Amino acid sequence: MSTTPATSIWETPMRRALELAARGPAVDPNPRVGCVLLDAAGHTLGEGFHRGAGTPHAEVAALADAARRAGGGEAALAEAGAHRLPAGTTAVVTLEPCNHTGRTGPCAEALLEAGVARVVIAQTDPTPLAAGGAERLRSAGVELLTGLLADEAEQLNPWFTQSARLGRPVVTLKLASTLDGRVAAADGTSQWITGPAARLDVHRQRATAGAIVVGTGTALADDPQLTVRLPEDDPARALLRVPAPAADDASGSATLRQPLRVVVGTRELPASARLRDDAAETLLLPTHDPAEVLATLAGRGIHHVWLEGGPTLAAAFLRAGLVDRLVHHLAPALLGAGAGMVSDLGIGTIAEIDRWQLQEVARLGDDLRLTLTPGPAGPHTPTPSGEDA
Amino acid sequence: MSTTPATSIWETPMRRALELAARGPAVDPNPRVGCVLLDAAGHTLGEGFHRGAGTPHAEVAALADAARRAGGGEAALAEAGAHRLPAGTTAVVTLEPCNHTGRTGPCAEALLEAGVARVVIAQTDPTPLAAGGAERLRSAGVELLTGLLADEAEQLNPWFTQSARLGRPVVTLKLASTLDGRVAAADGTSQWITGPAARLDVHRQRATAGAIVVGTGTALADDPQLTVRLPEDDPARALLRVPAPAADDASGSATLRQPLRVVVGTRELPASARLRDDAAETLLLPTHDPAEVLATLAGRGIHHVWLEGGPTLAAAFLRAGLVDRLVHHLAPALLGAGAGMVSDLGIGTIAEIDRWQLQEVARLGDDLRLTLTPGPAGPHTPTPSGEDA
Repeated sequence: MSTTPATSIWETPMRRALELAARGPAVDPNPRVGCVLLDAAGHTLGEGFHRGAGTPHAEVAALADAARRAGGGEAALAEAGAHRLPAGTTAVVTLEPCNHTGRTGPCAEALLEAGVARVVIAQTDPTPLAAGGAERLRSAGVELLTGLLADEAEQLNPWFTQSARLGRPVVTLKLASTLDGRVAAADGTSQWITGPAARLDVHRQRATAGAIVVGTGTALADDPQLTVRLPEDDPARALLRVPAPAADDASGSATLRQPLRVVVGTRELPASARLRDDAAETLLLPTHDPAEVLATLAGRGIHHVWLEGGPTLAAAFLRAGLVDRLVHHLAPALLGAGAGMVSDLGIGTIAEIDRWQLQEVARLGDDLRLTLTPGPAGPHTPTPSGEDA
Repeated sequence: MSTTPATSIWETPMRRALELAARGPAVDPNPRVGCVLLDAAGHTLGEGFHRGAGTPHAEVAALADAARRAGGGEAALAEAGAHRLPAGTTAVVTLEPCNHTGRTGPCAEALLEAGVARVVIAQTDPTPLAAGGAERLRSAGVELLTGLLADEAEQLNPWFTQSARLGRPVVTLKLASTLDGRVAAADGTSQWITGPAARLDVHRQRATAGAIVVGTGTALADDPQLTVRLPEDDPARALLRVPAPAADDASGSATLRQPLRVVVGTRELPASARLRDDAAETLLLPTHDPAEVLATLAGRGIHHVWLEGGPTLAAAFLRAGLVDRLVHHLAPALLGAGAGMVSDLGIGTIAEIDRWQLQEVARLGDDLRLTLTPGPAGPHTPTPSGEDA
């Protein structure tokens, strides 16, 4: 998968770059990236990481750091791009430098201007738009090394990476039901089918997403707030952390983001709906087309969508083939009647069954969490007619 | 739980008695029992185990073995009861000797007549009918020691033990469904929702039961054979083994039993139904009352019932509180429509949800097997109203 050499003198600085990258916001329109600049003798000239959309890319932050360390002071910082690095400088960066102009200029150009002689890259850029930086550098005569610790670099930005490959946000469908697939009792009551551990897990999983999506049916029936609410000491709070642009390192000040709340459907939300409070931004999308929902969210830089129901919206995404992952909280209980987990999927006969593959089974208090990915296309191989029930 | 002393000189002979017991049929109207007779110096005088209903109890088998070893030959064997053991003889037996006359006389009396001085017992008899043997022996002046390796002895006969405590057969309800609780697609087709490993597991689990029960609905819709069909080398075949009365040990000849097939309901089975073949005995019970079904099966010496559906019969047993264990084969698949796993349970609102407790989660090929026992009576503790979805 990667072109990593068995050992490399660049492994130590790359691990440092990965450490720096991890200080960036885990869920952001932009990936987390770290960069280390080294002189020909291997001494660090500068370091940087990306602090989130609208702030400098990691390479530019490292160049600014190098300018500051070189003694330029505030004046030099203001024109960091102009700082010239010593001959033989190597840039070690966790993601291929971008080659396009977004809110910031292309990093490949910035490295070239600063006179970098060699660039060591972990992950090549999976996005068609930003890719090409490596080629730009190579054609300008820069020595290039790619694939070093590429798997670790991918793990920093799993949703960004998978989303780039899919060309749309990754969609996780959250399900919660009894053993017999009920999400509510006969009278519509549903609080609570799962226990406190499963409900805490929902908040942790919401924190991994850029957007939490429900249909108007769920919004009207349950009046959910759809925010991430975690105890102060919960490790998943790190997923909400957005470092302040000025903060020096991981211990620096930060704000906590909330995922975008999205309501899909044409029915009106009452003014009193909790989704209209100011705990987080809410986007109303008057459509029934899952592809349209994802296109809108992709346009907002969202890589991972946490789809929380209800049965109609879940079925619409499943029918469209736009669910990449199921997280099913299964309560060891029976109801015998009440609403089902997903609405009609258009499956008429057993040969058309929609199979998934179990990736993980975890106990959450009294409940189970099943994590699944799309399975083989067809049903189980039929067995000889002699084998019956 | 047991009165086992920390160490006991009787542990070695008791382990031998447990070994002997395990040679008996695992599923039988009678429990598996082993017995070792030792003289005052600790030398074995005789050994025996129970080979199944209609054959001598373990104590009587051990007495006959002692008579034979004492050199009496065929004549002495014919009147084994009359053989007098040396003074100071100890009987080590895995289950409290019975005190009632069934197809054989009470074992407590047989031990007394043979002049046993001490009886060491593992498990006390859990059945009201046969119990009292220990008290009979004690009142006759025999030294008594109970509880040695009692847990191991119980494990030999789990269904017998639990059934004796319940006063009726233990009922395991077998369920198989998709994640959304469907047991068939919209057009009624259902072969196969689960994979080959789960279907093999069904045959292994059937082998643990004295009876396999279905409703007429399932019998008519699926025309199942309801026999245990296992590969030649499958270890679960041991559960079907009934040793021949004359066989000397575990390597001796044996026949394979099939569980009783039971069809509950008032609809007629066609003459062509596979349940009418001669692969196993079939009992038709024209009733809808689960308690009546269990009383009938208890009367036939059945300790464990494997209830295989369908949804209506499952609901009837669940509503009657007559299910002790769920075995749920869960296929990682969705159907969106089709028949549900259990019919109406009379549950109107979430507070009445029927909770179970997960005892085991196992992977069976692509599927999961959940084993559950009845859970706490009430629903999960409600959380403060501030906590929402």
